[in-house]
Amino acid sequence: MEEELGAMTEKLEVLRRDLADRGLADSIAELQQHVERLRGLAKSTPTRRPKVQDMSAEVVDSNPYSRLMALQRMGIVENYESIRDFSVAIVGIGGVGSVAAEMLTRCGIGRLLLYDYDTVELANMNRLFFRPDQVGMTKTDAAVQTLSDINPDVILESYSLNITTVKGFETFVESLKRKSSRMSAHCVDLVLSCVDNYEARMVVNQACNELSQTWMESGVSEDAVSGHIQLLIPGETACFACAPPLVVASGVDERTLKREGVCAASLPTTMGVVAGLLVQNALKYLLKFGEVSPYLGYNSLKDFFPTMEMKPNPQCSNAACLERQREYILAKPARDAAIKAKVDAEASSKVTGPIHVDNEWNISVVDDSEGQSSHSDISDALPQGLVRELPSADGYPLEEPGPSFDDLDELRRQLEALNAA
Amino acid sequence: MEEELGAMTEKLEVLRRDLADRGLADSIAELQQHVERLRGLAKSTPTRRPKVQDMSAEVVDSNPYSRLMALQRMGIVENYESIRDFSVAIVGIGGVGSVAAEMLTRCGIGRLLLYDYDTVELANMNRLFFRPDQVGMTKTDAAVQTLSDINPDVILESYSLNITTVKGFETFVESLKRKSSRMSAHCVDLVLSCVDNYEARMVVNQACNELSQTWMESGVSEDAVSGHIQLLIPGETACFACAPPLVVASGVDERTLKREGVCAASLPTTMGVVAGLLVQNALKYLLKFGEVSPYLGYNSLKDFFPTMEMKPNPQCSNAACLERQREYILAKPARDAAIKAKVDAEASSKVTGPIHVDNEWNISVVDDSEGQSSHSDISDALPQGLVRELPSADGYPLEEPGPSFDDLDELRRQLEALNAA
Repeated sequence: MEEELGAMTEKLEVLRRDLADRGLADSIAELQQHVERLRGLAKSTPTRRPKVQDMSAEVVDSNPYSRLMALQRMGIVENYESIRDFSVAIVGIGGVGSVAAEMLTRCGIGRLLLYDYDTVELANMNRLFFRPDQVGMTKTDAAVQTLSDINPDVILESYSLNITTVKGFETFVESLKRKSSRMSAHCVDLVLSCVDNYEARMVVNQACNELSQTWMESGVSEDAVSGHIQLLIPGETACFACAPPLVVASGVDERTLKREGVCAASLPTTMGVVAGLLVQNALKYLLKFGEVSPYLGYNSLKDFFPTMEMKPNPQCSNAACLERQREYILAKPARDAAIKAKVDAEASSKVTGPIHVDNEWNISVVDDSEGQSSHSDISDALPQGLVRELPSADGYPLEEPGPSFDDLDELRRQLEALNAA
Repeated sequence: MEEELGAMTEKLEVLRRDLADRGLADSIAELQQHVERLRGLAKSTPTRRPKVQDMSAEVVDSNPYSRLMALQRMGIVENYESIRDFSVAIVGIGGVGSVAAEMLTRCGIGRLLLYDYDTVELANMNRLFFRPDQVGMTKTDAAVQTLSDINPDVILESYSLNITTVKGFETFVESLKRKSSRMSAHCVDLVLSCVDNYEARMVVNQACNELSQTWMESGVSEDAVSGHIQLLIPGETACFACAPPLVVASGVDERTLKREGVCAASLPTTMGVVAGLLVQNALKYLLKFGEVSPYLGYNSLKDFFPTMEMKPNPQCSNAACLERQREYILAKPARDAAIKAKVDAEASSKVTGPIHVDNEWNISVVDDSEGQSSHSDISDALPQGLVRELPSADGYPLEEPGPSFDDLDELRRQLEALNAA
């Protein structure tokens, strides 16, 4: 629009000069005023915020990350800015996936990969995120439009494809393996499944089992009033095929269930809650705080939130799952050693002062979990149910410190002694 | 913009005719092409969806209410369209209030009243709803802009004011009492408090106690990882002054805590979950399904959801609360009679068939709450903890039907007999 207006201004100026002696100058002047007013109108259309180089904790109204960086100050997250190093894939940009994408975008995630094959319809307007003016766009295009306006710092990759087709599955798996050129040596860190049918879930399960990729599943019931989230670590927890849902369509193709004239109910509330619980667990997993729930249900009629844990099924029908289970069992000695090293390291470094020496909030907190490790005890806390495959740097035993060197001469003498031995 | 373009087209046409014989027609033709292109650009800017007269359950992509009306078909809600009769006030359009407003708007609530005194800043972008292009607008104006685009069927009233000032409080109370000219005889049905400080909560509490107005409270902790919602019915449950928070600022003005250089953390996840739980409870309360939670906490570090119930405090410091408590005690006989009538009515009408005779989903459901009233048992179910102040129409005893009149003559005879007695 700016370009059009510029061209018009130029042409009018030429006309005005040519016509100066012909008595039509007044008309031209009026036209020029119209162009000026149009320019004003064009300027009032939305402009995007500029990108932000580094996340700052500075408390000013113009800082989009101040309230997130405050999580460090509050003792919740050790290094919030590391969120920029993570890539998250979201499969299904519907009532749950779109809100999950918006939450991660507003949190400043490094890279988001979005997958959907559907288009936006007015029938989607009873859930958050999509707007009536986006009707007819693909859900991925509409999502990229909205998300890039909200936070231009996030790298967005979108795939308008159906992962349940052969071609779609290949592209899906390749995209999960690909490293981003704009980010350091990272493939996808976490996959969030936000699809609405059994077949698509089984496809995500297959891809993640093959890639040994940790993922989180989510779902909302057909009657709109309950939902769940679940953490799936290939080989370590049950995969989606290990424990199929108790209730599935019996003897009919699932797609025919969604036939003409019949539709499932949905509510923005249930989907918002499930998306919130899902992304909260994703943040806990990526940023290493709190406990990642292995499974969390939401029954909205009674506000009941069941939890459970599911071990892998040694008779699982998925071959890749069985392979991951074997690997997990083989790695047991390394895991046990890592746990022992960590426990020893913790025991020897049990000298911790208060976290907030300067109590600037004048708030007194009663710790009701004395003896337990609290969430502020971040240094080497991994979410419950997760262990490091290799001992972490701070997990090496500290009880027997090696020799300490006071100066270079001393160091040289020690080296000579070693060489002589 | 349309107007500007129209005026330009007209003027150019006049110029073209006047100049036809002077050899400048080509320049004018070019200018006319620019105008046409501008018109095309102007058309591609968002257009709003038209209003919908009646909520339809028809399953077509163009129906924004199909997935909500499906709640009736699924046996969750008896009369979904009654949502259009309700007015809900939301105090505080921040991280929780704005999302609550969007959820209710997408659900097609009748009327929303929005209160806030703040403006949108980039520092708000880590929570859902507001967009960077809205920075500088009042939160109420920005909310009305977004919400009216999403659903033009909702009546929006916004108040950019501080309810903790004397003038603001007066306007707030008056607005809660006012009936909408566009809706039948309804004042506000429910107040949702989504404010972020103790003082504002006490003000909402005062207003609701004075008006005997049921409200729901919500809150998110300063460290962003926990929150709660609470139902408050003046006289029946604890009011906000009956049980003040266990931890409050000690000996300092709360506002000075939010001083330069210090800010509370916040996450879109926690706020999204709290908003979802809040509006879900509001829907259950208004549309009479499920159980409304008296109090529900959300501890996101452990995915723990504590519940509790709080009775009013007979030593409450709030005079209006004590008055409501007295009224509630005085109304006990009427309540008991209503409950008895309801139980009797239920016993005498215990002939109910299966809800879904046509099991179009091929899904078999196991009822684990036999004997209890289930959520599909909607006819006269009120949320747990709520009782009707007056017996409802269907609560009158049905065992002893009054005389029935077959025709007008019979009616006249009966009246004469009564007069003669």
